[in-house]
Amino acid sequence: MNDIQIMNHAANNIRILAASMVEKAKSGHPGGAMGGADFINVLFSEYLVWDPSDPTWTGRDRFFLDPGHMSPMLYAALTLQGRFTLDEIQQLRQWGSPCPGHPELDVVRGIENSSGPLGQGHAMAAGAAVAEKFLEARLGHEVMQHHIFAYISDGGVEEEISQGVGRIAGKLALDNLIMFYDANDIQLSTEVNKVMREDTAAKYRAWNWTVMEIDGNDVKQIREALDKAIAGTGKPVLIIGKTVMGKGALKADGTSYEHSIKTHGAPLGDGAYVNTIKNLGGDPEKPFAIFDDVNKLYTDRAEALKKIVAKRKAAEAKWAKENPEKKKLMDEWFSGKAPKIDWSKVKQKPDSATRAASSACLKVLAQQVPNMICASADLSNSDKTDGFLKETHDLRPGDFSGAFFQAGVAELTMADMCIGMMLHGGVIAAMGTFFVFSDYMKPAVRIAALMGVPVKFIWTHDAFRVGEDGPTHEPVEQEAQIRLMEKLQNHKGQDSVRVFRPADCYETTVCWQMAMENMETPTALILSRQGIKCLPEGNDYEQARKGAYIVKGSDDNPDIVLVASGSEVSTLEDGTELLRKDGIRVRVVSAPSEGLFRRQPVGYQDNVLPYNVKKFGMTAGLPCTLEGLVGNGHNSHVFGMKSFGFSAPYKVLDEKLGFTGENVYTQVKEFLSE
Amino acid sequence: MNDIQIMNHAANNIRILAASMVEKAKSGHPGGAMGGADFINVLFSEYLVWDPSDPTWTGRDRFFLDPGHMSPMLYAALTLQGRFTLDEIQQLRQWGSPCPGHPELDVVRGIENSSGPLGQGHAMAAGAAVAEKFLEARLGHEVMQHHIFAYISDGGVEEEISQGVGRIAGKLALDNLIMFYDANDIQLSTEVNKVMREDTAAKYRAWNWTVMEIDGNDVKQIREALDKAIAGTGKPVLIIGKTVMGKGALKADGTSYEHSIKTHGAPLGDGAYVNTIKNLGGDPEKPFAIFDDVNKLYTDRAEALKKIVAKRKAAEAKWAKENPEKKKLMDEWFSGKAPKIDWSKVKQKPDSATRAASSACLKVLAQQVPNMICASADLSNSDKTDGFLKETHDLRPGDFSGAFFQAGVAELTMADMCIGMMLHGGVIAAMGTFFVFSDYMKPAVRIAALMGVPVKFIWTHDAFRVGEDGPTHEPVEQEAQIRLMEKLQNHKGQDSVRVFRPADCYETTVCWQMAMENMETPTALILSRQGIKCLPEGNDYEQARKGAYIVKGSDDNPDIVLVASGSEVSTLEDGTELLRKDGIRVRVVSAPSEGLFRRQPVGYQDNVLPYNVKKFGMTAGLPCTLEGLVGNGHNSHVFGMKSFGFSAPYKVLDEKLGFTGENVYTQVKEFLSE
Repeated sequence: MNDIQIMNHAANNIRILAASMVEKAKSGHPGGAMGGADFINVLFSEYLVWDPSDPTWTGRDRFFLDPGHMSPMLYAALTLQGRFTLDEIQQLRQWGSPCPGHPELDVVRGIENSSGPLGQGHAMAAGAAVAEKFLEARLGHEVMQHHIFAYISDGGVEEEISQGVGRIAGKLALDNLIMFYDANDIQLSTEVNKVMREDTAAKYRAWNWTVMEIDGNDVKQIREALDKAIAGTGKPVLIIGKTVMGKGALKADGTSYEHSIKTHGAPLGDGAYVNTIKNLGGDPEKPFAIFDDVNKLYTDRAEALKKIVAKRKAAEAKWAKENPEKKKLMDEWFSGKAPKIDWSKVKQKPDSATRAASSACLKVLAQQVPNMICASADLSNSDKTDGFLKETHDLRPGDFSGAFFQAGVAELTMADMCIGMMLHGGVIAAMGTFFVFSDYMKPAVRIAALMGVPVKFIWTHDAFRVGEDGPTHEPVEQEAQIRLMEKLQNHKGQDSVRVFRPADCYETTVCWQMAMENMETPTALILSRQGIKCLPEGNDYEQARKGAYIVKGSDDNPDIVLVASGSEVSTLEDGTELLRKDGIRVRVVSAPSEGLFRRQPVGYQDNVLPYNVKKFGMTAGLPCTLEGLVGNGHNSHVFGMKSFGFSAPYKVLDEKLGFTGENVYTQVKEFLSE
Repeated sequence: MNDIQIMNHAANNIRILAASMVEKAKSGHPGGAMGGADFINVLFSEYLVWDPSDPTWTGRDRFFLDPGHMSPMLYAALTLQGRFTLDEIQQLRQWGSPCPGHPELDVVRGIENSSGPLGQGHAMAAGAAVAEKFLEARLGHEVMQHHIFAYISDGGVEEEISQGVGRIAGKLALDNLIMFYDANDIQLSTEVNKVMREDTAAKYRAWNWTVMEIDGNDVKQIREALDKAIAGTGKPVLIIGKTVMGKGALKADGTSYEHSIKTHGAPLGDGAYVNTIKNLGGDPEKPFAIFDDVNKLYTDRAEALKKIVAKRKAAEAKWAKENPEKKKLMDEWFSGKAPKIDWSKVKQKPDSATRAASSACLKVLAQQVPNMICASADLSNSDKTDGFLKETHDLRPGDFSGAFFQAGVAELTMADMCIGMMLHGGVIAAMGTFFVFSDYMKPAVRIAALMGVPVKFIWTHDAFRVGEDGPTHEPVEQEAQIRLMEKLQNHKGQDSVRVFRPADCYETTVCWQMAMENMETPTALILSRQGIKCLPEGNDYEQARKGAYIVKGSDDNPDIVLVASGSEVSTLEDGTELLRKDGIRVRVVSAPSEGLFRRQPVGYQDNVLPYNVKKFGMTAGLPCTLEGLVGNGHNSHVFGMKSFGFSAPYKVLDEKLGFTGENVYTQVKEFLSE
């Protein structure tokens, strides 16, 4: 067989494995996997640079899959690479299998991102491309010269987020990003032309991408396109490959089963399956096999990689010797360990807004954490990420010496790109926007939580005290919403997102410390627009590390425990003053993180929130925001928001909505008399 | 003054009013409003067709603002139209004012949509354009010949959703949609070129739009563009108007304050304000005034409109006479009243999945509700909206006789477009996707909830029982998340979203009935992928109208009350059988809607969930999903999910995760023995 025949044989091998996995699982997506087999085979057998003996090598090319339902294609190709066994892929979609229905992050096996929700994978790839350029600017081309490959399908191109990725990757001229668009004209429920009549090539060109259009099932054309892309075009590259859905598939009656919607999301079915496997040169009785020539193809590639990698690693070693300081930094950055930070440098201004307090922390982070990137979705001067920006400048095409990522108005894209930066490794990413717009980011928050990617979310303007901007900009349900992620555990048993809503500027510093120390899960900081009076002098802010704690000045043997997070704590303090005049003994509890509190010993929890003492909570969110701490029984009462907010100056809203010390007094007195 | 001079004078009048509103409020966005004044003035004084004496006239042109922060421009222009008073606009951003910081739906005053979160407004406009064409196809051009105008800014063009709107409006060739893009090169935190270097015109052309590029501050060019657009191009129209941010603004020192980021989101400031008002021909002492010639311009327009509208209404009257049946339908459809439906036609198949049960309802709705549009984000054969689709066909360019909206993979766009359809009036819109993807739709759910737009969300694949697709596709926190909107009230004091998770196929019918009867708020239906054993024979499903009720066959004087929604109710029934063998008296409560239950008389609530009886909840969501009903004290226990789901067949997951009758038995026994 000649070279092309072997390549086609290998692609057919991928098709056979993919279709067989799905058939055995009685569930999954064979058609797309069969269409994309040629591209993934060319990429994996001839282009992708990685080290089989060191799969987490920092200099490896990264491959990000966007359409996670094409996992059978990926698992099959990774099996040819020797990263899954034939036994393992037969457990597709079964309990405990390393081959779940949609790929889950597993770098050692070659899975650089969890995928499934369309569009997010290619945004992560774009983020990884930013990280590569950012690190190259700091460390040098010798150690940062790899490529980021992304694989996208019709659905991903349709998803809204492709606008964000298209714009930003083009704007930043990410020429290390090479994306293959598997255009097979079929999507889950219809043919693509039912929902799209766009000129996709022209669209990406308008975004400043280099676009090539090829037959995505043709080895030669794929090679030519990849050669051009890797040679560099000064822009991100989109290779639009026209492919055939279910390529090589036959129906039970022996006629073609190509280009059929039915092969998208279901097994081929008995007769069709057998005919298809035969047609592809496989044995329906023993479909889980690797052809000898295909085995040789990938073995040869592994040998070739040894040389390629040895050369690259020799250059890296030379660089390391010549740049010991940089090498040390690089090792630190890729260690996954939290950076060392001298927090004493943070200067807080008493009674400031917690967004301003966050800004003070970000200033110090910009100064002390050289591998940190901070982003904002066009709100830097408002979400106060400009504390970071003022110490650096923005990422620019051809100049990644800055560390601020101006994402423009595209919250979801920003989030997924920041996640992608951290998936790449070597970078710590934080991002800001208004808290109400965390709604746009939820899909990204969720996948970061699932993967355990420790990005930092900076969400400011945290309550109706946004004021004049009115209800569209005033979060009410968002705190309870995001705290659901704190209640939801990841597969390691950790709270999948750590959420902090600090009570004043000093508590903000401690929460930012915990955010930077947390390298296992995403952290969210929920911050105020308005200034907040500081907690009583002498308050031990380190206690915030327990999630909830008794604020300085609280009375022993309290008649009532008052509980809040964020700026409502200071409102409780105002109320406390009035209550004490009536001889009522009051404890105030600040609870920046319910999740962290629930991780404390039961004795501590019971001590802070004693079972037999009445508890009163105040929240600018829905009452249920605090019911996990305060309870919802007869010994408990939470005063919170019932409705959307309103447009008015926030001090007017405080009065109108009852968020004043006076009302705390009234409410608590009434509650105590019940 | 000549014609152009008067027009410029009017635009300056808008600028003066806008800047003055913001100055007086000490908060707001003057710069953009000043840049866009020329376009809005030309549109409102010469093109927009509406009836001052009948502002909700069905045949009116609609104007959808996307950048809600440009409210001062809109309020100013509406003041010239006589829809706000000079006194009212002086109350911008104040408590109780009709001029909140971001416009809130108020059709009588000319505000067709609430706006603020960028991008959503123009998606609503695209939806309204679909509705217009849909209704034209059913009623006739005589009554449906108006245009949908949208106004978008740089931020909106950047937002991800513009990809969905660009694609769909282009695909459907919505030539009744005319969008002005106010391209002023400035956004909140930077100049636009910091984040965008795209060729926006080429991008929209790639989406099949007609694009015109003009000086957006030039009256003649605006007129020419609008003339061409209104003449019809067979495609949606994008008019890219280059405008000058803060046009006419001067600084305190008298130099130009144009093209400055500082004018985006803050008052001009004392000296600058005075200089600016003078420069625009206003009186800084009495800025809230309408110039005489401008007053005449708008008075003349009102006179002209009388004739235009009279002619149109005469044609409508003629049409009504000739088409009495259609007229009757039209009146019904625009009445805002729920359609009459013969639900007896719904044929349910016992033990079916509730998504299939929903399909059976949708079939009948497609047959009986001729003004209903059902959508799916490329999942119609999976979310079972194909029950509707099979009775009709999809909306197509040039053919809106079908009633199914194939949105492609773009959940947020679909949601906002469906909202826009209902804002237009005359149409009822429903839309389907997987429940886990409700995450993408949250921003739209929120704004629909705020406006009280009664769209129907159909969310299927409601729990880990999605099975093989794994954690990215398995909702866990989503039920608790969306029920936050049921807890959050709109400004009328209603639960802002009604949420149903029915327990079996028959309960699904009742929930769909309530969804269709609900014409005041959005309704969400949360439906299962897998088949569910029906509740005991003789169950009175009408009781679902109370939100939660005692299932048939429950014991009197129970030892334990079991509570669930969705398919967990049938799991509780399985457990009940086992518990009864031990002589335990069991009540099972099905709770499709906690919110609706909380609207029942306290006596009913106490009767269903007695305070002094132990309550056990089971949920495939987080335990807190049910804690509002079951409580979280010592008399309460909820068995729920703690973590993300897993990839495996759902029956395996049921066993592994404990969602079986056996485990209900074990859990309840243990709980009772505590």
